[in-house]
Amino acid sequence: MSKTHIIALDAMGGDFGPSVVIPAAAYVLETQKDISFLIFGDEKRVNPILDQHPKLKSACTFTHTDIAISGTDKPSRALRNGKGSSMRLAIEAVKEGKAHGVVSAGNTGALMVMSKLILKSLPGISRPAIASIMPTAKGKTVMLDLGANLECDAEILTQFAVLGAVYARVVQGINEPTVGLLNVGTEEMKGHDEIRAAAEVLSTVPFPGKYHGFIEGDDITKGTVDVVVTDGFTGNVALKTAEGVAKLTKHFLTDAFKSSPLAIVGYLLSMGAIKKMKDKVDPRKYNGGMFLGINGICVKSHGGSDVLGTQNAILVAADLIRNDFNAQVANEIEQLMEQESFVQAVGV
Amino acid sequence: MSKTHIIALDAMGGDFGPSVVIPAAAYVLETQKDISFLIFGDEKRVNPILDQHPKLKSACTFTHTDIAISGTDKPSRALRNGKGSSMRLAIEAVKEGKAHGVVSAGNTGALMVMSKLILKSLPGISRPAIASIMPTAKGKTVMLDLGANLECDAEILTQFAVLGAVYARVVQGINEPTVGLLNVGTEEMKGHDEIRAAAEVLSTVPFPGKYHGFIEGDDITKGTVDVVVTDGFTGNVALKTAEGVAKLTKHFLTDAFKSSPLAIVGYLLSMGAIKKMKDKVDPRKYNGGMFLGINGICVKSHGGSDVLGTQNAILVAADLIRNDFNAQVANEIEQLMEQESFVQAVGV
Repeated sequence: MSKTHIIALDAMGGDFGPSVVIPAAAYVLETQKDISFLIFGDEKRVNPILDQHPKLKSACTFTHTDIAISGTDKPSRALRNGKGSSMRLAIEAVKEGKAHGVVSAGNTGALMVMSKLILKSLPGISRPAIASIMPTAKGKTVMLDLGANLECDAEILTQFAVLGAVYARVVQGINEPTVGLLNVGTEEMKGHDEIRAAAEVLSTVPFPGKYHGFIEGDDITKGTVDVVVTDGFTGNVALKTAEGVAKLTKHFLTDAFKSSPLAIVGYLLSMGAIKKMKDKVDPRKYNGGMFLGINGICVKSHGGSDVLGTQNAILVAADLIRNDFNAQVANEIEQLMEQESFVQAVGV
Repeated sequence: MSKTHIIALDAMGGDFGPSVVIPAAAYVLETQKDISFLIFGDEKRVNPILDQHPKLKSACTFTHTDIAISGTDKPSRALRNGKGSSMRLAIEAVKEGKAHGVVSAGNTGALMVMSKLILKSLPGISRPAIASIMPTAKGKTVMLDLGANLECDAEILTQFAVLGAVYARVVQGINEPTVGLLNVGTEEMKGHDEIRAAAEVLSTVPFPGKYHGFIEGDDITKGTVDVVVTDGFTGNVALKTAEGVAKLTKHFLTDAFKSSPLAIVGYLLSMGAIKKMKDKVDPRKYNGGMFLGINGICVKSHGGSDVLGTQNAILVAADLIRNDFNAQVANEIEQLMEQESFVQAVGV
């Protein structure tokens, strides 16, 4: 297969910059025959590592810039001062058709604001969302928004439902994905006005998924639905709370195994099985926040990601590119716009 | 010690009614020398179980009613039709000074609405909150609101901070409890208007705790602060998400131990240690949603609680009563009201 899919990489983002981005890219290049890279970053930091990966060095195009967005910059400041930065150049490569998608571990707010400004939103989508995959008892679920839009009205929540459902169908291959609205109870009268209005739209108007109804926080990991829709404030808190509980459990479990000689022997015997379980919930395997609704594939890798996590974020972008996610969303939205009931209800 | 503290029990609430409430009360009566009970419920269901606990039967006062609030009733309906119900009679016992607090596993919305109507809010508190204890890496933290008030302005969030801080100081014995506002980031500019306004008040006006700043979802289990303050929508989703992740981890862990003969042997050897860990995060030990800000001690037990969970909810109420929590809050609020800066900022 020829290298038909090109990903623009911001090598300077995240806590570890090129020291994780370059090895991750080298691994993906080796294992994914259709993927190649444009790499943007500071040659002083990138070249020494690129030299250790000769195959990647010869296969990718590297562009030097000594400007990088700081992780602590406000998005507005990043936008003002970020011209020519590795993040911005990577996004512009997508805009100019030189790459099919961009991956960055840099400042989330800056990446969202810059990609919205440069790539724009998809037609019919007023607010792109950050989506991610979560492990569940039944497999996986996609959840959005995880922090791009803190306050969301019914129109925006409905658009998230469309984006999530198209993702589940196109990328995950679920024929009729179920969509749930995250709420404080499952009864109809629960929640605030915005969420009840979104429920009204989703339960009456045909859209690419199947509306399940309201779900509660514990339904996320139960795998009650394929797509969890929520506002960015709630989604961000829920995601980080989940990460916190997972870490606490790991901490308590480690303590338990260390608590007696018998437990240590028990641990040694069950180590293989426990490793399998840890693998199942390894957050690095779920790394890759997708900016759905942007007119261009854009994936945010966690700032603290290691090589494995970064590889996964690149693979998430690759999957969106291979499945031509944005064209599929645009197509769905166009069909929805032809339904008068949808246009009236959602006001797109 | 004489039975100086009397708790009114709604025996009919929750999935199991008197079959868990009565044995739990019997256990508490046995172990807590200062606690006695008024029990309200249907004699046909309560008496056969009470007969099995002769000590409790002779020590408590039982009042028959065949009216009970259904778990699925809307609060407004429960209020209209709930006169003479076991829940209402238990709350009225507190109002009439016959009991020092009430515990019910019934309909949360009905219990909140009814206790607000009958017992009223504490002076200076406009909206009572549901608070609960969460396990953390460092010990325990108290979190509120968990679902009573879906939308909260700065004034309400500030009142929650006062309630939580007084709880941590008076009941948990933490001299200067730290208070964090749950947000999507720790930087000052993060979050929506209400939360930033609450941060402004808490960081400038003296109140019973020490304002830590914004915290994120994973800070809950890290134990970053003693008191986590949030609106009821976010708090409810975060709590249930945490419960869901804990269940999923348990499920994966059980699977892992069953996955090979070696792992089974490993499990048998480390069983004691794992049991200790499970005990540490056993949700039954954290059962008991405190309605802080009501002018009367009111604790909600989880609808699905077993005897151990119900015992814990009763002990939570006992601790609030023993420490005279409401008088302490009233005293703190009175002092705060004397500070002109607080009154201006919070508008109580």
